Amino acid sequence: MITDEVPLLDHHCHGVVDADLDRPAFEALLTEAPTAHPGRSGFDSLLGAAVLRWCAPLLDLEPHCDPERYLARRWELGWSEVSSRLLRAAGVDTWLVDTGYSSVSLTTPAELAGLGGGVAHEILRLEQVFEEVSRTADAAGLAAAVEAAVRTRGAHAVGLKSIVAYRTGLELPAQPPTAAEFTRAADTWLREGDGRLANPVLLGWLAHLGVRVGAELGLPLQLHTGFGDPDLRLQRADPLLLSDFLSATRHGSATVMLLHCWPFHRNAGYLAHVYGQVRVDVGLAVPYVGERAHEVLAELLELAPFSSVCYSSDGYGLPELLFLGAKLWRRGLGRLVDTWLADDALPLRTAERLVHGIAAGNAAKVYIHARPNGPTG
Amino acid sequence: MITDEVPLLDHHCHGVVDADLDRPAFEALLTEAPTAHPGRSGFDSLLGAAVLRWCAPLLDLEPHCDPERYLARRWELGWSEVSSRLLRAAGVDTWLVDTGYSSVSLTTPAELAGLGGGVAHEILRLEQVFEEVSRTADAAGLAAAVEAAVRTRGAHAVGLKSIVAYRTGLELPAQPPTAAEFTRAADTWLREGDGRLANPVLLGWLAHLGVRVGAELGLPLQLHTGFGDPDLRLQRADPLLLSDFLSATRHGSATVMLLHCWPFHRNAGYLAHVYGQVRVDVGLAVPYVGERAHEVLAELLELAPFSSVCYSSDGYGLPELLFLGAKLWRRGLGRLVDTWLADDALPLRTAERLVHGIAAGNAAKVYIHARPNGPTG
Amino acid sequence: MITDEVPLLDHHCHGVVDADLDRPAFEALLTEAPTAHPGRSGFDSLLGAAVLRWCAPLLDLEPHCDPERYLARRWELGWSEVSSRLLRAAGVDTWLVDTGYSSVSLTTPAELAGLGGGVAHEILRLEQVFEEVSRTADAAGLAAAVEAAVRTRGAHAVGLKSIVAYRTGLELPAQPPTAAEFTRAADTWLREGDGRLANPVLLGWLAHLGVRVGAELGLPLQLHTGFGDPDLRLQRADPLLLSDFLSATRHGSATVMLLHCWPFHRNAGYLAHVYGQVRVDVGLAVPYVGERAHEVLAELLELAPFSSVCYSSDGYGLPELLFLGAKLWRRGLGRLVDTWLADDALPLRTAERLVHGIAAGNAAKVYIHARPNGPTG
Repeated sequence: MITDEVPLLDHHCHGVVDADLDRPAFEALLTEAPTAHPGRSGFDSLLGAAVLRWCAPLLDLEPHCDPERYLARRWELGWSEVSSRLLRAAGVDTWLVDTGYSSVSLTTPAELAGLGGGVAHEILRLEQVFEEVSRTADAAGLAAAVEAAVRTRGAHAVGLKSIVAYRTGLELPAQPPTAAEFTRAADTWLREGDGRLANPVLLGWLAHLGVRVGAELGLPLQLHTGFGDPDLRLQRADPLLLSDFLSATRHGSATVMLLHCWPFHRNAGYLAHVYGQVRVDVGLAVPYVGERAHEVLAELLELAPFSSVCYSSDGYGLPELLFLGAKLWRRGLGRLVDTWLADDALPLRTAERLVHGIAAGNAAKVYIHARPNGPTG
Repeated sequence: MITDEVPLLDHHCHGVVDADLDRPAFEALLTEAPTAHPGRSGFDSLLGAAVLRWCAPLLDLEPHCDPERYLARRWELGWSEVSSRLLRAAGVDTWLVDTGYSSVSLTTPAELAGLGGGVAHEILRLEQVFEEVSRTADAAGLAAAVEAAVRTRGAHAVGLKSIVAYRTGLELPAQPPTAAEFTRAADTWLREGDGRLANPVLLGWLAHLGVRVGAELGLPLQLHTGFGDPDLRLQRADPLLLSDFLSATRHGSATVMLLHCWPFHRNAGYLAHVYGQVRVDVGLAVPYVGERAHEVLAELLELAPFSSVCYSSDGYGLPELLFLGAKLWRRGLGRLVDTWLADDALPLRTAERLVHGIAAGNAAKVYIHARPNGPTG
Repeated sequence: MITDEVPLLDHHCHGVVDADLDRPAFEALLTEAPTAHPGRSGFDSLLGAAVLRWCAPLLDLEPHCDPERYLARRWELGWSEVSSRLLRAAGVDTWLVDTGYSSVSLTTPAELAGLGGGVAHEILRLEQVFEEVSRTADAAGLAAAVEAAVRTRGAHAVGLKSIVAYRTGLELPAQPPTAAEFTRAADTWLREGDGRLANPVLLGWLAHLGVRVGAELGLPLQLHTGFGDPDLRLQRADPLLLSDFLSATRHGSATVMLLHCWPFHRNAGYLAHVYGQVRVDVGLAVPYVGERAHEVLAELLELAPFSSVCYSSDGYGLPELLFLGAKLWRRGLGRLVDTWLADDALPLRTAERLVHGIAAGNAAKVYIHARPNGPTG
């Protein structure tokens, strides 16, 4: 396939668990469901089938082996060897790692690159910076302190990320709140809140900060959209809700990355079509939907310009997810583009540009080449 | 195909009309449109094409015969013989029959099983129980009387069903109303209403009753979602609107079945992924979309765990719909799974488990095996 | 393919630019994005690939030539020769031309037909009539003056069009405002507005006028839905928002055409299924999605009756778009129907009726044959 050997830039992933996992712990990471359910197994899905099909041979097992066999071999080899084999098989040479909170211990970006080869850079989670700074700031000084922290920590990162979809949803305001509105909201939140940022005024301010400071420092702003765990309400994570925000911020030099997007990936493709600052991916979806990756990618590409689409796995915790993101992306996009070539819909040079752009080039332009002095992290 | 011979449990269907049908009456049942329209024929669609392709041979006609020929032969054989031939050809051994209101006379569950073979059980329509009980109750006694009736009648059923999507939409509250809120709403509704339950407080209470009593009696709660006749507003039937309700009820032992779901079947698959108590089908859609069934099933399976998907036809009135649900499901899922086998994405034993689970096993677990003493209806 | 030679009625298109275009001007018309963005090219998409694949040979170039070569040859031949070649290759014999505002100079309907062959008729943009009339009317006389103008100008047209999706979205009221409500809204709007009609009361009135007068004069009412430039908010252009309006107007003799619809084309298919007065197309989407046209058409046909679907390109400005609408429709629907024939899902005569209906017959019935005295424009 045309995608077989192309090196990838995984522009949105997380670390892997730095410990051996028993079956419940492994299965808990093989689903976005928050709790185990009797009679449900994470293997019982297209994702589970893909783990047994594609990961097992990398652990010297037959494809399609039993979950028990797979997990026993995983334990036998140890998390570090397993991670190294799977991550190296992904063919990724650059990892952009979201270092936001995690309920389990994960590898650092440097450790991830050590295991998987290539280099890793950090993506800075805005809500986490805000929450950390808020522990020692008062309402009057909060905005300045958060901005200073984003600038300081952003100097060591290649991108910013907001998970506002999980907090109040994506209906961000076209304009940031005024200073007075911010202070009033901050004052109430600091007095009455539990430290978790879920105030729409403060979150709107923070997203606009991300665009403003991101443009200045050459840091794209990633926004979680679509599919994720049920802490979010999926209908509030439709990227179309960002329309006012994207329209208002389209004339600057900021780049906005819409992550995941499924099942709203056609909507995201439309936004990438009409707003030049928008980039999109179908990370997370690609490993989960297994054999259906080509169809999800095809729907995204109906409207999305080729230069707006980026590869990511959104793998979290399990190296299987970071590998399968890559493997199923190669398989899905490869099948799609090979069909287009066979139907003479594209010439080979356009197909290659499309594939290399999505694999790495489009992301490299905005994360790596756009930095005034390159990443320093 | 891998699905050719697998016996089905049709977990959501209705009776068939127990009379011979002329063309207008037949065509009225071949569409969800409420009124006939000049120049429109129910045969003029993928569903209509499927009737002529797949049902005609069962009536000793050539495939693709003219509608006139088909209807003449149908009349000649008589509704009972036609129903028997079509229903038996469905290969269904268990029918779960929604016995809610119908504007036309339909077979009882026992009559349906008599015609089609196998056994039939009843699904109890909650709104109908509520409306019947309300005719002789006052506001103070209504809640207890409805609950008692649901328990009494539920003892003879294998599941409960709510059509709240048709009344106020699926945005159900996370918590049921308090007793005082219920009584106030009931009082107003009994005095001012026309006997049709369309009050959001009462409907929210009833859905929570369904979950609570259903869990206790081992009766899954079916919820109509998605596509149906235009008594509903499709945008209020998006299953994502159930998120708060599903989140709040996920720790109990209730099972919630999302019926139909099209065109929101990807959303429904997401809910089945993140909430362990959720099951999904694409009944009604499967016969209607004809040759497209494999694609609709594929989209559902992107996120839905294999063990969460159930077969149903939602056939109503015409035995053609109960047969085509089965035939097109076999054809659509068979094509899909055979492709996955050919691409070596799944091993045969996983494919067989998937097929048998969707065909009958997943539904049998929650409707039949979960009953404390089995169905008594 | 079964669609290769079938003559088309393009029931929704615009004129082409009557001047030669340099690269920025050409690319600006090859996207719905409002502004150029550094590093973005309109050629870098499925649409761009389709231009180079299918249009280049009509200008005596190799398929898949470079954009530079394509544009140079285009300039060399001149806009008139290029337009004539592309439009004639579309195989369209009737063009229904939306003559609404344009920021660039476009051919008239007569000029378009002169270039492309066949005949052209006008579609009258309601908001434009309203805005023109409002310049010389007062609030008390506005309703009557607009109705008179619609009647006068409608006598020379074959259809009406509303772009209310761009103004306040598709959530139209079931009933028009009262005369007093209209006058009050008109009074405020005339005093305070800038001449652009974006008042929901007045727009609701105008849509109902379109249905009422349209029914009387035999003029279908076209409604923009779905995808378009970002003057609209895509979530407010979901045709499901029209449900109340369609339900309230379903018993008259008006025809309502839902244009474009993507990415809500399944929703539109549902509306066409349940409301007999509704027709649908996936114009605009078809040329843009290139190789994906068969899938978009397939999703539309899941529920839409065959007799409710119409062909259009929604081509605007570039003759390439009017040609590719036709070319990709032939290719996409042809592939779909040929597969259905190969799978024996349809007989040839049904396939031919389906193809000819969508190509021209379904639209001809409501635009041309429904006119009391035929079009006079």
